[in-house]
Amino acid sequence: MLRRLSFACLLLLTAISTAAAVRKVDLIVTGGTVITMAGPNIDNGAVAIDKGDIVAVGTSSDIAKRFAGTDTIHARGSAILPGFVNAHTHVPMTLFRGIADDRDLMDWLQHFIFPAEAKNVDRDFVRWGTRLAAAEMIASGTTTFTDMYYFESDIAAEAKKAGLRAVVGETMIDFPVADNKTWDAAVAYVREFVTHWRGDRLITAALAPHSPYTVSRAHLEQVRALATELHAPILIHVAETKNEAAQIKDNTSGLSPAAYLDSIGFLGHDVIAAHGVWLTPEDIQTFAKKRVGVAHCPESNMMLASGVAHVVDMRKAGVSVGLGTDGPAGSNNNLDMVEEAASAARLQKITLGDPKALSARDVLEMATIGGAKVLGMEDRIGTLEAGKRADVIVIDLQQPKTQPVYAVESAIVYAASGNSVVTTICDGKVLMRNRKVLTVDVAAAVAKAKEYRDRVVRSLK
Amino acid sequence: MLRRLSFACLLLLTAISTAAAVRKVDLIVTGGTVITMAGPNIDNGAVAIDKGDIVAVGTSSDIAKRFAGTDTIHARGSAILPGFVNAHTHVPMTLFRGIADDRDLMDWLQHFIFPAEAKNVDRDFVRWGTRLAAAEMIASGTTTFTDMYYFESDIAAEAKKAGLRAVVGETMIDFPVADNKTWDAAVAYVREFVTHWRGDRLITAALAPHSPYTVSRAHLEQVRALATELHAPILIHVAETKNEAAQIKDNTSGLSPAAYLDSIGFLGHDVIAAHGVWLTPEDIQTFAKKRVGVAHCPESNMMLASGVAHVVDMRKAGVSVGLGTDGPAGSNNNLDMVEEAASAARLQKITLGDPKALSARDVLEMATIGGAKVLGMEDRIGTLEAGKRADVIVIDLQQPKTQPVYAVESAIVYAASGNSVVTTICDGKVLMRNRKVLTVDVAAAVAKAKEYRDRVVRSLK
Repeated sequence: MLRRLSFACLLLLTAISTAAAVRKVDLIVTGGTVITMAGPNIDNGAVAIDKGDIVAVGTSSDIAKRFAGTDTIHARGSAILPGFVNAHTHVPMTLFRGIADDRDLMDWLQHFIFPAEAKNVDRDFVRWGTRLAAAEMIASGTTTFTDMYYFESDIAAEAKKAGLRAVVGETMIDFPVADNKTWDAAVAYVREFVTHWRGDRLITAALAPHSPYTVSRAHLEQVRALATELHAPILIHVAETKNEAAQIKDNTSGLSPAAYLDSIGFLGHDVIAAHGVWLTPEDIQTFAKKRVGVAHCPESNMMLASGVAHVVDMRKAGVSVGLGTDGPAGSNNNLDMVEEAASAARLQKITLGDPKALSARDVLEMATIGGAKVLGMEDRIGTLEAGKRADVIVIDLQQPKTQPVYAVESAIVYAASGNSVVTTICDGKVLMRNRKVLTVDVAAAVAKAKEYRDRVVRSLK
Repeated sequence: MLRRLSFACLLLLTAISTAAAVRKVDLIVTGGTVITMAGPNIDNGAVAIDKGDIVAVGTSSDIAKRFAGTDTIHARGSAILPGFVNAHTHVPMTLFRGIADDRDLMDWLQHFIFPAEAKNVDRDFVRWGTRLAAAEMIASGTTTFTDMYYFESDIAAEAKKAGLRAVVGETMIDFPVADNKTWDAAVAYVREFVTHWRGDRLITAALAPHSPYTVSRAHLEQVRALATELHAPILIHVAETKNEAAQIKDNTSGLSPAAYLDSIGFLGHDVIAAHGVWLTPEDIQTFAKKRVGVAHCPESNMMLASGVAHVVDMRKAGVSVGLGTDGPAGSNNNLDMVEEAASAARLQKITLGDPKALSARDVLEMATIGGAKVLGMEDRIGTLEAGKRADVIVIDLQQPKTQPVYAVESAIVYAASGNSVVTTICDGKVLMRNRKVLTVDVAAAVAKAKEYRDRVVRSLK
C-alpha cells in the first residue's frame, strides 16, 4: 500500500514538474519549415512568441514540450520566415500607382508626378495612401518598411495603426513641397517629429534629405549634424541615375555622388542610401568602411532604366544590402518583396553572365536580415531568433505553382509570389491570418483609392 | 376599343420582335473593362460566347440587348482579356521544379536534369506533370501553351482533359531519350502522333527537333520535309546561348544558328523559334522575310544568364514575338505569364536604357495576339473578336495591390500577378471560376508531385 502511495506521489511530482516546465506564451506558429536566416532551416519547426518577442525557435515537438500557446497558427506545408524588410519606398504614392508608366524620367516627373503631388498631396492623402499600402504590404509579408515622403508623422501614425514596423523619413529638399514650404520649416518639423516618436516600439523617425543634387551642401551638413544630435537615421537617394552622377561630377570638380557626400563628412553607419546604381568601386569601399547600407531597388532601376547596381561587389566588400520596391507610381508598381527578390536574383545573373551570381538564399537574405542591417536594426529584426521582435510570416507552398518543393528558398523566390503569404505577424500581433488582413479596413482603403484617382485625374486636366 | 386592341397588338409585336432579336448563347462575361487586343478597350464591356466561339464583343448594355446567356459571369471591377498564350515551355518539368537552381547550365543539365530525366521520365510522369502544370496555367490565365518534351501525345491528352489549347511538339534529338531510343523511332512516333490529333479543336501536334546543335543537318532536313508533308508546325530552340552560336559557327565555317537553318532550307512560316537571344541583325531580317516566329523567354534568359534577346528590333522588323516561360525546372520556375510580361518589359527597358522600350500594352500584346501569331493561330485566338475561339480570362483589379487603376494594362502587368486571374475560359468552357480550378483534380496533382519529388531525390543519390 505504502509502495503504491509513493509511486502515485512520484507520478504527481513528475506531472507537476513537467507542468512547471511548460511556459504559457501568447502564440505558437508551428509545423512549417522554419527559415531562421540565422542558421540551417528547421523542418517541421515552430516559433514561440510572447509579448511581441520571439522566445524560442526549434522543432515543433521541442517547442510543444516547452511552451503552450494561448493561440496557435498551424503552418504545415508552409515556410515560416522573418517578415520582409522593404528598405526603400514611398508608400502614399500607391494612390498614384500606374499614373504614368513607360516614360522618360523627366517626362514622368515634370508632367505627372510633380503636378499631381502639388495639387493633391495633403495629410489625408498620405493617410489613405498609407492605409492602402499597409493592406498590400501585410498581404505580401512585409513587416517593416522604410519610407521617404511628406507628412511622415501621419504615415508613422497609420503604420502603427496597421501594426507595421517602419523607418519613416521626412523629406527635406531645397524647394517648397507639400508639407514644408521652407527649409527651416522642414528642420522644425523633423525636430518635433523625431522627438515625438522616440522610444516607440514600431516607429523609427528619420531624416530624409532627398538627394545630393536636390539639397545644398550647407543643408546636407545641417542634416548630418541634426541626425547626430537627434540619434536618428538618414535616408537619402544616392547615385540613382547616370545624370545625377554627371551633375555632381560637374559641380564638385570630379567627385561621384558618394565621394562628394563623404568629402563633406556626411556618411556614417546611420546613413541608408537608396539605389546606389552608379557607385564606383572606390565608393563601395567607402560605404563598407563607413558602414553605409544600400537599399537595392532592382525593379525600379529596370523600369526607369536607371542602370544595374553592383550588388555582388557590394556584398563581397561587406556593404549591407537590402531590397526596396521603391514607390508604386511608375517605378515598380507594387510593394511585393517576393517578386522584388526574384528580380534581384535574375538581374544580377543576366548582368554578370553568371547564373550563380545571386542565389535564392542570397536574395531572401537581402529581403530580411540584409534590410535589417541596412536599417541598423539587426539586433531586433531580420532573423527568427529568441530575443528578437516577433516579425514572422507564413508562406503557403501547397499551391500547384510551388509544388513540388526540392529547395524551400527556391520555391519561395522563383515560384511563389507575395500572394503566397498567408499569415503576417509583426511585433507579435497577427496582422493577417489565412489571407484575411485584420488591421486595415481594406474595403474603405480601396474605395478611397478610387475617389483619389478621380480627383487626381481631374487635377491634371 | 379597336384602337386599344391595335395598340395592344403593336406592343405584342414589338415584344415579339425584341424577343426574336435576343439570341440565346451559352455564356456571357460582362461588366469589366474588355481589352480586346484588337482595338480600343471597352469600359463596362461584355463578351458573348456560344459553342466555343466568341459571337460578339461590345458594351455590356449592347450585349444585354442582343444576347441572353444560359450562364453569366460578372466581371465588374475586373479586366476581361484574351487568354494568355505561353509560346514556349516544357510542362512536365513542373515535377523537377527547383531541383537545381543558381547553377551553371552544364552543371544543371549534366548533374541534375539529364540524370533525373533518364531515371524518372515515363508516360505516367509526363501525365502527372502536365496535370500539375495545367492546374497552375489555368490558375494564372494561360489558355494556350506550346510544349516541347517527350511522350507528347500523352501531354496532349492531358491538356485536352484539362480543357487547355496546346501546340505540343514531340522532341526529336540525335541521342536516345525517354520515349524514342532511335531517330527512326522518333520519326515514326511523330507521324502517328500528328495523324492522331489532326482536326482536334484544342490540340495541334508539332515536330520539335531540339536545336541546330543537337540534331544533324540530315535529320533537320528530314524534319523539314516531314513537317511540310504533314502540315505540322516545327518547334525548335534557336540561338539560345553564346556557346551554341559559337559551336554552329565552328561547324559551318561562320554561320549563325539561324543562317545555318536558313541555308539548309529549314525556315518557314511554320517554324517557331524559342529564345532567339543571339540572332544577328541579318538573322532578324531573315526571320521577318521567312515569317519565323520567336518565343521570347525573358525570365529563363535571365535565370540561366543566356543573354538578352533583341525583342524591340525584332518587333520593328516585323517578326512575330510571343512570350514563353520556358520550363519550370531551374529556368523560371513558374508558368506565370503576367510575371513573364512584366519581366519582358523591365528587361528591355534596362538593357536599352529606355523606359519606353516596351510598354505594358506591348508586353500584353506579346502575351496574347503576339503568341497567337507566332503559332500561326491568329485567325483563331489571341484577341477578343467575334468569330474567334472563346479563350477569355478575367483579372480582378479590386485588390489593394492593383488599386487605384489609372491604366488597365499597367495595373495588370506592373501591379497584378497570375494570382489576380479569377476566371479562365478556354474554347468556351469555364476551366476556373472564382479562383476554383474545375477541370483538374488539384489535390491529387499536388499529392502526386510530392511522391515524384521523393522518387526523383532517391534516384539521384
